Amino acid sequence: MYIARTSAVRSYIRVPRVSNISYLRYHSTSPDGESSTQANQTISNKQLLYTTDPLSPGSIFFLPHGTRIFNKLVQFMKNQQTKYGFQEVITPLIYKSKLWETSGHWQNYQDDMFKVIGNDASKEETISEEDDGLHDYGLKPMNCPGHCLIYSKFDRSYNELPIRYSDFSSLHRNEASGSLTGLTRVRRFHQDDGHIFCELNQIDQEIKNTINLIKDTYKVFDMEEGDIEFYLSTRPEDKYLGDLETWNNAELQLKTVLDSVVGEGKWNIREGDGAFYGPKIDVLLTDAFKKKHQVGTIQLDFQLPSRFELSYVSKDGSRDNQPILIHRAVFGSLERFFAILLDHYQGKWPFWINPRQAIIIPINDNHISAAEALQKKLSGDILNTDSDTMSPITGYNFYVDVDSRKETTGARIKEAIQKGYSYIIMIGDKDIENGTVAIRHRDNRKVSNLSADEVYKMFIESEKAYK
Amino acid sequence: MYIARTSAVRSYIRVPRVSNISYLRYHSTSPDGESSTQANQTISNKQLLYTTDPLSPGSIFFLPHGTRIFNKLVQFMKNQQTKYGFQEVITPLIYKSKLWETSGHWQNYQDDMFKVIGNDASKEETISEEDDGLHDYGLKPMNCPGHCLIYSKFDRSYNELPIRYSDFSSLHRNEASGSLTGLTRVRRFHQDDGHIFCELNQIDQEIKNTINLIKDTYKVFDMEEGDIEFYLSTRPEDKYLGDLETWNNAELQLKTVLDSVVGEGKWNIREGDGAFYGPKIDVLLTDAFKKKHQVGTIQLDFQLPSRFELSYVSKDGSRDNQPILIHRAVFGSLERFFAILLDHYQGKWPFWINPRQAIIIPINDNHISAAEALQKKLSGDILNTDSDTMSPITGYNFYVDVDSRKETTGARIKEAIQKGYSYIIMIGDKDIENGTVAIRHRDNRKVSNLSADEVYKMFIESEKAYK
Repeated sequence: MYIARTSAVRSYIRVPRVSNISYLRYHSTSPDGESSTQANQTISNKQLLYTTDPLSPGSIFFLPHGTRIFNKLVQFMKNQQTKYGFQEVITPLIYKSKLWETSGHWQNYQDDMFKVIGNDASKEETISEEDDGLHDYGLKPMNCPGHCLIYSKFDRSYNELPIRYSDFSSLHRNEASGSLTGLTRVRRFHQDDGHIFCELNQIDQEIKNTINLIKDTYKVFDMEEGDIEFYLSTRPEDKYLGDLETWNNAELQLKTVLDSVVGEGKWNIREGDGAFYGPKIDVLLTDAFKKKHQVGTIQLDFQLPSRFELSYVSKDGSRDNQPILIHRAVFGSLERFFAILLDHYQGKWPFWINPRQAIIIPINDNHISAAEALQKKLSGDILNTDSDTMSPITGYNFYVDVDSRKETTGARIKEAIQKGYSYIIMIGDKDIENGTVAIRHRDNRKVSNLSADEVYKMFIESEKAYK
Repeated sequence: MYIARTSAVRSYIRVPRVSNISYLRYHSTSPDGESSTQANQTISNKQLLYTTDPLSPGSIFFLPHGTRIFNKLVQFMKNQQTKYGFQEVITPLIYKSKLWETSGHWQNYQDDMFKVIGNDASKEETISEEDDGLHDYGLKPMNCPGHCLIYSKFDRSYNELPIRYSDFSSLHRNEASGSLTGLTRVRRFHQDDGHIFCELNQIDQEIKNTINLIKDTYKVFDMEEGDIEFYLSTRPEDKYLGDLETWNNAELQLKTVLDSVVGEGKWNIREGDGAFYGPKIDVLLTDAFKKKHQVGTIQLDFQLPSRFELSYVSKDGSRDNQPILIHRAVFGSLERFFAILLDHYQGKWPFWINPRQAIIIPINDNHISAAEALQKKLSGDILNTDSDTMSPITGYNFYVDVDSRKETTGARIKEAIQKGYSYIIMIGDKDIENGTVAIRHRDNRKVSNLSADEVYKMFIESEKAYK
């Protein structure tokens, strides 16, 4: 054997198994997260959405069907953000500790960060004497310093502002091992992160846009307006950065925007609860178990632009103008939003985001080939091409399965409903004869006879309407 | 000040700037990569595609326009892989050293890996005495162990095979600092990675599919068939894992497939050059500078399934059958493929992947509003919605800019060509009167007068045809 393997190590890796598609392992839940985490588990066990493992505590393994949902969330947000003028960037995950010293993370956030070191130290170059021994990296907990670096690489002019960068990178924050819980308390997560560099007088419009996007987004996910709360956190009394006038100006702008977009008296204030670097608006969502989650956030930052010495040339030609930085996220942590959606829909995903959109049940073996042809058609543009044609970049991609097992139709329908398929489509002799299929929705026993074209059109309409 | 900042640190961060959109910093190039790396630099400087920084040596910052290309490559491959039955998964980036001991990476690959440690050691839980002190993590250099973990979590049956997982995770491999070069020698990269778990008799079809996908893909990127070479690397003489019969059987299958798909005598052999864990096929591409790059790869692996004790229930009900693992990538490193495309197209991106697909030049200020209306229309479904409608998940998204600066039309056309826009669209009084626009291609002076609908249709046709 080239490499000896100790059996001790192996037995650690070995995980218990149960029949086919049901066993998933979780960490013990923390008391306060228990009810919704258990519900998450139950649904994920049935639908095979994600799993975890003690070899990577706090990092989620998204299984194929969970990945479909995750990717839909990302694509949804990318498309909305495009409309709001965001430009996506891809930034490194590890940066030398010097960056974290500049950003202030090394002084203030170090305990929550992971350090990264090359196993072979000789691979690092010593740039200067001053750098000697400073070859530790920090695994990024946030994207902002990377975005500030990009901003700083070019001369910037007022007519480029606002510059809006979006980023869906992996972020790592070291939570205590015992507190890790399902999807809501994790060490590795993803944000629909965005940073806006703008002038003071542009804050107003940017905040308005963000609040509108937040409200519109939650509506798509059928969240009740009453379950969404906006909290403004203002300047802390002692420790804060920047001058009082800038704080007052910014807080006034935030209050005015909240009044106009959320409504007077319809938002809350947390006096003195802002970060030392600027005031912020937090968005809280109450889940199906009446637990509140912080989701969206909008934070003004007078600190990082100064630490990174960011500047732009203003209209009058003056050079050292400092942009305001706005950190904002709509979903917040995608993992946490995923958990909220699990609770919210209880596994009954709307068609557009369902990882199991339809299943075709051929009545008997004679109908399998018709079922498979129908599957190809209903799957949409990506799959419905000739075998020697490349799939297009842009096109519909519906998740349609065929269940041709030798079970009774009734048993197969029952299982399909349990698994959460939106539509169940039956195909038999009569259907083939009539050129139609028999289709029913998961939540409604009524069966309709539609042509394949009509079904496909319905799929497209449902996706377009986010239903 | 809340946090003091030393000027030494700051001066390190500070990077020189030149006028607006041109300065990008690079590491010194290694001698063998010099010519093509320099060409990459020149194009990227003009087109603002990516940058690097000494604070994260070997990790690429993809700027907005580079991110557009990167994302198109990923989406292209996701859609093709969907057709070939791959299921995407999202897997953790850090795993305890135990995983890397099981996989063999810790014994064989440690020097090329980064170690990850929580700054606050108290956050790790000691699971058992045996685990004490084993709380280091490895930052993943490959996805395979994570995919083996997912495989191992469920009872697997022959009728699920082949199971094909795809993954676009960040990977980190510690190259020596001095050898880092542009996009081709990096520390952080992404693969269009896929792992197929299958039975011995399924190897043949899976390899065929992969070679076909490789050939079809390179054709989309206008690579000459003569620039693609296939190399079969066979069993090393001394150090190898698994029995001779399995090796011989697998090598025979690979040879037969290469003969049938690539053609007899049209592929090369590297006797004894296989990995210790199995034979492999490497795909080499010759770039515009006659330099060869390894891109696609297909590797059989008899080792990992055994180390992770992977098994499946066969048709006859027997339990301890071990699947074969196939590692495969078509692009290989997306960063390296990006570099090859930079050389290959010399910045003249085909329309479908161009981050600057069209630019509209209003002849004078009177035509700006018409130009902006045209921009919205030509941008496609994602942007062309009412302001209070959510952008759809599926739809065309073309990159169309407007250049309304007060420069002469000729100067603006010249600059648009330099920046690499595929189409230049002029709009003036006569065009508005006639309901047409004047459009020309970057590489052809001929101007056509087309309606907006005709232009949009042409965009769609170009994307569909990968032109």
